Amino acid sequence: MEKIESIKEFGGYLNRYTHYSKVCNSNMTFSVYLPPQAQFEKLPSLYWLSGLTCTDENARSKAGAQRYAAEYGLAIIFPDTSPRGDDVPDSKERYDLGKGAGFYINATQTPWNEYYKMYDYITQELPIIIEDNFPQLNSKKSISGHSMGGHGALICALKNPDLFTSVSAFAPICNPINSQWGKNCFSAYLGKNELVWNDYDATCLILNGKKVKNILIDQGTSDEFYHQKQLLPENFIAACKKENQSLNLRFQDGYDHSYHFISSFIRDHIIYHAEYLK
Amino acid sequence: MEKIESIKEFGGYLNRYTHYSKVCNSNMTFSVYLPPQAQFEKLPSLYWLSGLTCTDENARSKAGAQRYAAEYGLAIIFPDTSPRGDDVPDSKERYDLGKGAGFYINATQTPWNEYYKMYDYITQELPIIIEDNFPQLNSKKSISGHSMGGHGALICALKNPDLFTSVSAFAPICNPINSQWGKNCFSAYLGKNELVWNDYDATCLILNGKKVKNILIDQGTSDEFYHQKQLLPENFIAACKKENQSLNLRFQDGYDHSYHFISSFIRDHIIYHAEYLK
Repeated sequence: MEKIESIKEFGGYLNRYTHYSKVCNSNMTFSVYLPPQAQFEKLPSLYWLSGLTCTDENARSKAGAQRYAAEYGLAIIFPDTSPRGDDVPDSKERYDLGKGAGFYINATQTPWNEYYKMYDYITQELPIIIEDNFPQLNSKKSISGHSMGGHGALICALKNPDLFTSVSAFAPICNPINSQWGKNCFSAYLGKNELVWNDYDATCLILNGKKVKNILIDQGTSDEFYHQKQLLPENFIAACKKENQSLNLRFQDGYDHSYHFISSFIRDHIIYHAEYLK
Repeated sequence: MEKIESIKEFGGYLNRYTHYSKVCNSNMTFSVYLPPQAQFEKLPSLYWLSGLTCTDENARSKAGAQRYAAEYGLAIIFPDTSPRGDDVPDSKERYDLGKGAGFYINATQTPWNEYYKMYDYITQELPIIIEDNFPQLNSKKSISGHSMGGHGALICALKNPDLFTSVSAFAPICNPINSQWGKNCFSAYLGKNELVWNDYDATCLILNGKKVKNILIDQGTSDEFYHQKQLLPENFIAACKKENQSLNLRFQDGYDHSYHFISSFIRDHIIYHAEYLK
């Protein structure tokens, strides 16, 4: 692991690292924000999963999360959204497949399956790398994300309730097997057998008995991808109701899908996770 | 004037407009953040001038200012940094001359002088456009900015103490006639007679008797452009001391030149201006 950048922010440090990922078979980049409290005590972490086309850079520059991480004393881990590098297969004509679109799942189909193992990366490899290299952090971690990253946060938490203490999401793809984005990606990464897809679909996971303590979701009502039926929060609400999964899904009037929406409500999410991570 | 975008943020609206600028002889773009209070009362404005290579987009996405504008009840005006459009002369091989590098001065030399009138745009044309089109705003305005935009904020305020109620800056180019950036641009825009340059140099303006009530400046000590002697805050401090100009210039230990630095201290600047704008 090599530190390639360090920027002081809100009294702490926003650092960027590259490392070789065994599961993704490529060099990966991630950022970590260590608030000022990290000098004196071991802190919990919030993993932030970004959406389509993003790298680790977007959220750290635009979400406004570090200000509250410094206030509430938690670190933020910003992973990339896919493997990178010249060897990694891509789909240059599509922004919703290949680089920048790892969907936080383990691909089983060629040519993707040699590199696209973002589920294992987020839930296994990266937490160990963080644990081994950041003595400032304790083992408590929570997870959140936006859009494709909201989907990632939900499935990673639902499938690993002991790994992540709490979960939240902004405008997540709640039911990818029924959205065009999800269908396109899952068929490429996982193949034609749709039964396999269910294991990476938050709505299906709830209906199949997965459970976490609570879920916080914010969804803008003027979100173009909500209206295009890519996100399908209603399906997730129905599943949670059916299975008695505690859910606080807030429709935020007039907000869109952008980082301006995230920045408007990130404070609530940081406070939510800080309470669970105490 | 045409509204080309409207995004809800922190309960208010971040809107973007295009209009034909008479002084810059081209179509220009700017953004305005109207906090939620604008629905009920007339509010003051903060003009934010961005740095080299920026448009109106950078600060509105990365500075984190809207959160505090909503808290303290002021609008933010984000102008572009130069004229734009295919007809406008540019210097494609240089980021510090031409488009994105208007330096908030009135060019007198060809080919720049037909378009590059950013000083008149910021201090005359834009305030009238704002006044004519935003009944939500009162006439009180302050000004701030970053780097080249910090230079712009200082000279616009010093030359127009009745127009801007208060002024602050992040890592401003304090003495452009003695920095490489300033020398390159001023010789291109203003010609070889260096005496003319003094009229757009904050340090010279102070030494020549210009005065404002107070000035707040933040400067990171790990700022690469500070170390490259592009910013020269010490010259500005000496001039203010000599002329008894009230100045609070804070060297912020370990901070760089980026928006991460700005976001760390923007709260202080918004509060500073809100106090003067009351």
